[in-house]
Amino acid sequence: MTQAPAKRTFFALGRVENYTDAVFAIAATLLVLDLTTTAFGKISSDAELWHQLGAMWPSFMAFGVSSVLLGGLWVSHISQFRDIARADIVLLWLNNARLLFIVLIPFTTSLVSEYSDYYAGRVLLPVNFFFAMALGIATWFWAASKDGHLLKDEAKPDAPSQTVGSVTALIAGGVTVALSPWLGSWAFLTFAVSGPISGVLQKRRKATPSA
Amino acid sequence: MTQAPAKRTFFALGRVENYTDAVFAIAATLLVLDLTTTAFGKISSDAELWHQLGAMWPSFMAFGVSSVLLGGLWVSHISQFRDIARADIVLLWLNNARLLFIVLIPFTTSLVSEYSDYYAGRVLLPVNFFFAMALGIATWFWAASKDGHLLKDEAKPDAPSQTVGSVTALIAGGVTVALSPWLGSWAFLTFAVSGPISGVLQKRRKATPSA
Amino acid sequence: MTQAPAKRTFFALGRVENYTDAVFAIAATLLVLDLTTTAFGKISSDAELWHQLGAMWPSFMAFGVSSVLLGGLWVSHISQFRDIARADIVLLWLNNARLLFIVLIPFTTSLVSEYSDYYAGRVLLPVNFFFAMALGIATWFWAASKDGHLLKDEAKPDAPSQTVGSVTALIAGGVTVALSPWLGSWAFLTFAVSGPISGVLQKRRKATPSA
Amino acid sequence: MTQAPAKRTFFALGRVENYTDAVFAIAATLLVLDLTTTAFGKISSDAELWHQLGAMWPSFMAFGVSSVLLGGLWVSHISQFRDIARADIVLLWLNNARLLFIVLIPFTTSLVSEYSDYYAGRVLLPVNFFFAMALGIATWFWAASKDGHLLKDEAKPDAPSQTVGSVTALIAGGVTVALSPWLGSWAFLTFAVSGPISGVLQKRRKATPSA
Repeated sequence: MTQAPAKRTFFALGRVENYTDAVFAIAATLLVLDLTTTAFGKISSDAELWHQLGAMWPSFMAFGVSSVLLGGLWVSHISQFRDIARADIVLLWLNNARLLFIVLIPFTTSLVSEYSDYYAGRVLLPVNFFFAMALGIATWFWAASKDGHLLKDEAKPDAPSQTVGSVTALIAGGVTVALSPWLGSWAFLTFAVSGPISGVLQKRRKATPSA
Repeated sequence: MTQAPAKRTFFALGRVENYTDAVFAIAATLLVLDLTTTAFGKISSDAELWHQLGAMWPSFMAFGVSSVLLGGLWVSHISQFRDIARADIVLLWLNNARLLFIVLIPFTTSLVSEYSDYYAGRVLLPVNFFFAMALGIATWFWAASKDGHLLKDEAKPDAPSQTVGSVTALIAGGVTVALSPWLGSWAFLTFAVSGPISGVLQKRRKATPSA
Repeated sequence: MTQAPAKRTFFALGRVENYTDAVFAIAATLLVLDLTTTAFGKISSDAELWHQLGAMWPSFMAFGVSSVLLGGLWVSHISQFRDIARADIVLLWLNNARLLFIVLIPFTTSLVSEYSDYYAGRVLLPVNFFFAMALGIATWFWAASKDGHLLKDEAKPDAPSQTVGSVTALIAGGVTVALSPWLGSWAFLTFAVSGPISGVLQKRRKATPSA
Repeated sequence: MTQAPAKRTFFALGRVENYTDAVFAIAATLLVLDLTTTAFGKISSDAELWHQLGAMWPSFMAFGVSSVLLGGLWVSHISQFRDIARADIVLLWLNNARLLFIVLIPFTTSLVSEYSDYYAGRVLLPVNFFFAMALGIATWFWAASKDGHLLKDEAKPDAPSQTVGSVTALIAGGVTVALSPWLGSWAFLTFAVSGPISGVLQKRRKATPSA
């Protein structure tokens, strides 16, 4: 790897990470725009105001759920990029596509809080989350391909374990989508089950390094 | 502490700080969206426009108060992270939870400016602020636990003093919540009293290093 | 180049890049504000909700197209600044002007999704994109002028190739504007043609280093 | 200056700059929210759409003017912080106060574009700008006080020249406010005159180093 062609092909991660963090931060903050008092109408007593705030509980729930989802997607992004050493043009566009689905989360969240009585209202947030995860996994497979050509050297031995974790998470995301017509956002609890399973699988992988 | 396991367990602070700064910046900027002229109706003279702007004073007050609160929470975040050397997964989620309450501040601010005649309008901003502080303190206790396993070495001797400061601030936050039904946002002046008290307590702690 | 005047004349790129990344991130995220359910009216069945979501397809298309455009402009910004070593006051203002057109993209996108039946609705997004690119190219010409006074030393030999790529892209942008009255956003497919042409031209340039 | 007390008293600039850049970026991007087609009503021909877009010219003007103002304030922030080595708590709060007036610019801009027929509509943007500049200058005076205790060593000889520039700019800001009732946003052209004057004054200062 001579230096000159490297400069032409690869990108330092600094700006990719900055841009990503800013997109996540804005998406997380836009969620609050759904919490609005415009539908309150005229308030003329304390009881009415508490009642109206209480009637907003589906919005608060949706805000909480989406905040946790965005938090999880961000944690998985920084975990992944901890192992990545450099970007190429493919990784840049995979990351851009992933961020497109991050940006959509405030929209699909607003569907949940307004239309959770209908299939589309319940299903589209899990679908959105699934695509964001799928693009995260595509990013990982690309970085780990060709002998881990975009990975840090010290991350390469651990790459198969990351792959197991990614695939388990994606399956959990698919199960969430499948359950969401019945369970709505409760379907995300699938991840409370998949996390420990993934942990066990990753440990078994490490215990059998020759696998 | 060998290097390989460290890489697996800990996260560098760079992206946590970037993400945090962006969330604070957006929350601070969204406050301005409450300052809107949509309720002005038809304006047909200078006097009317000044009158309408004057009638917005609760909104300007709320904007000012929340800007100072966000500024204070941000300053306390950078003071705290000056002493922290690395993040683990618990600290990441404590930080995410803290940011969730930062993101809520534009919403609870809009309650103050529109419904300060009612309990809920006066109390929820202090409650929001209290939770943001409580999660800040939880972050600190976690970082300082296990012999300060997430702290910088040079920060460890000073950790008890930071703890005193944090607890004093949290008590002030609780007093603010308790006073806010009567005093509204003036209750935040509690911090004008708690600051000097905390300063004195921290100095006394330093004067008696064997304590 | 003695050190003292350098300090007075030049700026480090760190903050320019941070500011740029944040502007891009916010512009990309604001695109989602056009995806709104306010026009849905009363929904009383699953079929209606799917129908209304389906009726939003021009908005989804516009969201997708503008996300790709912003992604492309951002990738070209980081590619360019990979070759730039420092900023001067002219480059700062060229960058500010470029960002002004980035900030406009959510507005011209809303024109596309609402008024694609009319010339102005179809033409103004390509025009906006064209100006953003033109200012990007002006940035490059300025940085490469005076023997590449703002370029990294290792980037100087490659500068003519970057110039060829920039000019080809600008011509493609002009063709897009010219075609957009008839083709609307499909006119952006011009870039699917211009990319490979530009690649060939840049390779030929490299093959004849004495040119 | 021993190392331990330095850590307790001072803050590294990284996060202050990140936070500042993000606030500027969001304020600049929020300006586009004033460019909205909600007032267009029903459009049924190309001519009508062009007419409605043309009728938005005060909004476009206000967008352009405020973008240039924000750009100028940002350039002056990075010029200033190029000379600053570290922050203390006073500088943090001066910076927070300065950002409060940055955040207000989208609001005062909306006044210009909607109410430029009235005094308040014309005057409040220049007033806002004046306060942002005044806090910028206060930041500078604080950093340069006590023998430049927050300045970089290599910036200290040049500090008086920066001070001259700051004061000239503030006077220009005051003149802008004074002229704005008659000239509206054209009053900002004062800076086209003050810039060169400031340049001459700074050069004279340098020519007489013993002054």
